[in-house]
Amino acid sequence: MALVVQKYGGSSVSDAEKIKHVAARVIATQAQGNQVVVVVSAMGDTTDELIDLANSVTTDVGGNREMDILLTAGERISMALLAMAIKDQGLKAMSFTGFQAGISTDSEHGSARIWKIDPKRIQDALKDGNVVVVAGFQGFSFENGDTTTLGRGGSDTTAVALAAALKADICEIYSDVDGVYTADPRIVPRARKLAQIDLDSMLELSSSGAKILYIRAVEFARRHRVPLRVRSTFSADPGTLVYTTKEGEEMEEPVVSGVAADSTQSKVTVIGVPDRPGKAAEIFQAVAEAGANIDMIVQNVSTTENHLSDISFTLPHNDRHKAVEALKAKQGDIGFQSVSYDDEIGKLSIVGAGMKTSSGVSAKLFGALAKAGINIEMISTSEIRISVVTRADQLKEATRIVHTAFELDATETAVIYAGTGR
Amino acid sequence: MALVVQKYGGSSVSDAEKIKHVAARVIATQAQGNQVVVVVSAMGDTTDELIDLANSVTTDVGGNREMDILLTAGERISMALLAMAIKDQGLKAMSFTGFQAGISTDSEHGSARIWKIDPKRIQDALKDGNVVVVAGFQGFSFENGDTTTLGRGGSDTTAVALAAALKADICEIYSDVDGVYTADPRIVPRARKLAQIDLDSMLELSSSGAKILYIRAVEFARRHRVPLRVRSTFSADPGTLVYTTKEGEEMEEPVVSGVAADSTQSKVTVIGVPDRPGKAAEIFQAVAEAGANIDMIVQNVSTTENHLSDISFTLPHNDRHKAVEALKAKQGDIGFQSVSYDDEIGKLSIVGAGMKTSSGVSAKLFGALAKAGINIEMISTSEIRISVVTRADQLKEATRIVHTAFELDATETAVIYAGTGR
Repeated sequence: MALVVQKYGGSSVSDAEKIKHVAARVIATQAQGNQVVVVVSAMGDTTDELIDLANSVTTDVGGNREMDILLTAGERISMALLAMAIKDQGLKAMSFTGFQAGISTDSEHGSARIWKIDPKRIQDALKDGNVVVVAGFQGFSFENGDTTTLGRGGSDTTAVALAAALKADICEIYSDVDGVYTADPRIVPRARKLAQIDLDSMLELSSSGAKILYIRAVEFARRHRVPLRVRSTFSADPGTLVYTTKEGEEMEEPVVSGVAADSTQSKVTVIGVPDRPGKAAEIFQAVAEAGANIDMIVQNVSTTENHLSDISFTLPHNDRHKAVEALKAKQGDIGFQSVSYDDEIGKLSIVGAGMKTSSGVSAKLFGALAKAGINIEMISTSEIRISVVTRADQLKEATRIVHTAFELDATETAVIYAGTGR
Repeated sequence: MALVVQKYGGSSVSDAEKIKHVAARVIATQAQGNQVVVVVSAMGDTTDELIDLANSVTTDVGGNREMDILLTAGERISMALLAMAIKDQGLKAMSFTGFQAGISTDSEHGSARIWKIDPKRIQDALKDGNVVVVAGFQGFSFENGDTTTLGRGGSDTTAVALAAALKADICEIYSDVDGVYTADPRIVPRARKLAQIDLDSMLELSSSGAKILYIRAVEFARRHRVPLRVRSTFSADPGTLVYTTKEGEEMEEPVVSGVAADSTQSKVTVIGVPDRPGKAAEIFQAVAEAGANIDMIVQNVSTTENHLSDISFTLPHNDRHKAVEALKAKQGDIGFQSVSYDDEIGKLSIVGAGMKTSSGVSAKLFGALAKAGINIEMISTSEIRISVVTRADQLKEATRIVHTAFELDATETAVIYAGTGR
């Protein structure tokens, strides 16, 4: 008997009919001889509606304990309804809040980190023959018991963390997308669905802007060796297996698994930085203290006689303002000449575990972009990823060109399911 | 510094504007030098919408743990929004769920009884200068920590119970009605608002069908000697003080405080009951085992030679079916001839603490009804109440006639505020 954790996103439970459909899928999974734990998001647009309500009574809806109490109401509604729908079919089901599921976190309201999971009540309920339904996205502070939320993609994280704590055989992530594609089918119509991808490559894809799985959930899966399957709620397609490679195990891996496009970043350039040891550290110290997350960094080699260099880095749009303000405040101390920013950039990444043993990948990437007249502004690489920054308005074209260059195009156009996305 | 508990019903917090209005009232109360604890119901029709959702995924929405998790989401939303709205005005506020407020109950999902309140977190928050916002209607099982709900009027009960536990100076119940009236103004346009009424009379009014305060909340207030004030959220009117009389304290009380009309009852008549000891007990044992709540009872004296009597009783419409079924199942054992029911009855009650020292009250009541040609089918009395059963279609007319007969009519027509009721 296998233990299966399934996670259904908001678009999968957006109305009563869809909840009944999910109940039927869960029941079918149990009928195949599995124990099933289901993690649900809030129904459809519930979270957005609650945020709108908060915005209409306060000017400050930042992460705080009241906001977390408000938002977690959404998952309480969907989890209770799903449990009722399963019970209505004559099966045993019990729903659990984050607190009841034993998901303790730190006290960072709005973006809490899971501290520990004590799944005793879930295990007892499974032993009693229940389907277990758990509210995604929520936990409780181990310091004072208050309700917390896990931030963006929190329900994915709940599912993977529960799968790890329960030592589940598989964690299935259901949404309105039927798997992991070689590129976003809305940008590249001939994107191919991958039958499988390794967790390292999936991590690089997620951190490069692919929205199919949230990076924290993938990190969690990688650290705890939880195999994932990305599937559609609305089809029988087996989706994409995101597998963990065991030590010493060799699998023949594709050179490039996919192309990710990310248009959520800005570029900040610090001009005229004194070319002395420690100056770069001072800059990134200031940015870190402002709470901004840096992605790519490029430092121009100082070639002028006045020994000044430029440092550019990318970071999420939302962090750009505070990073620039923090740098301006330290301009005197650090001694640079000026700071500028550019919100109109795009980041393209190719990812693949086969890259590390394959030569000529970067040459092929740069060649394809050059041929199309697309200028590369920044480059960063890891063992299994190459990312480049282009102009924002060239990002989609660049994605299609690179997808074709690496022979990822399918013979047919991908089917995009209707839905509200993730 | 006084400690004030305020309870706002669903129609008082039905949208963002009204929540801001409530926040302003709460802030004004604190500005007058009070500590304030606010109990809120779910926004407007939220509870009904959640029940509709449940009905669309299951055929069984009876009191159970999933239903309680579902319904309590409503109060989590309103409490968080109200706390945000207060904080938005620069004051300190914290919201608490039933669990966080320390409201433990038994495990009767859907109609839990409060077991104990441990208000430590509330007291700490008050000491810290916070306005405290508490979710009405909810608690947690002392047996397993699961979320429970207190049933109809649960938010009133939460407010009164908290006021008792915190030894509050006053518990204010806000709704879209500006006080306790001598009769329902929708039935008796010349009903008068009472400046004050004693808790005993309020209890009789509530149990006789007046919907202004739920009976469980009034019982709680009476037992724990919590003074109440019934007020409108939408006016500055002081409303009605529901006072506790201290031992030995004498107040000049009106003979009749008000007239209540109740059209939610049915009458069941058991015909041909053998006139032997214990038969009435068998009948009411069967009805009690079916879970039906009986109100008035009339037994006709046996005058026939065959020593058979008839027993009639009233009970809520909702309980009628199960009571009749339970009796039919025991017909052979008990030996009665038949059972019939009548849903078309109305119950009229006059209530007043002065009745016990005043003579001629029942004569005046029966005389007024007789003069109007309204037949009385059943009578029951307590020290401070007389109730009669009439035909349902005569109930409103009877209420107006009795209201006039006891000189309760105001010189002006009562103002009825817009709103969704309680």
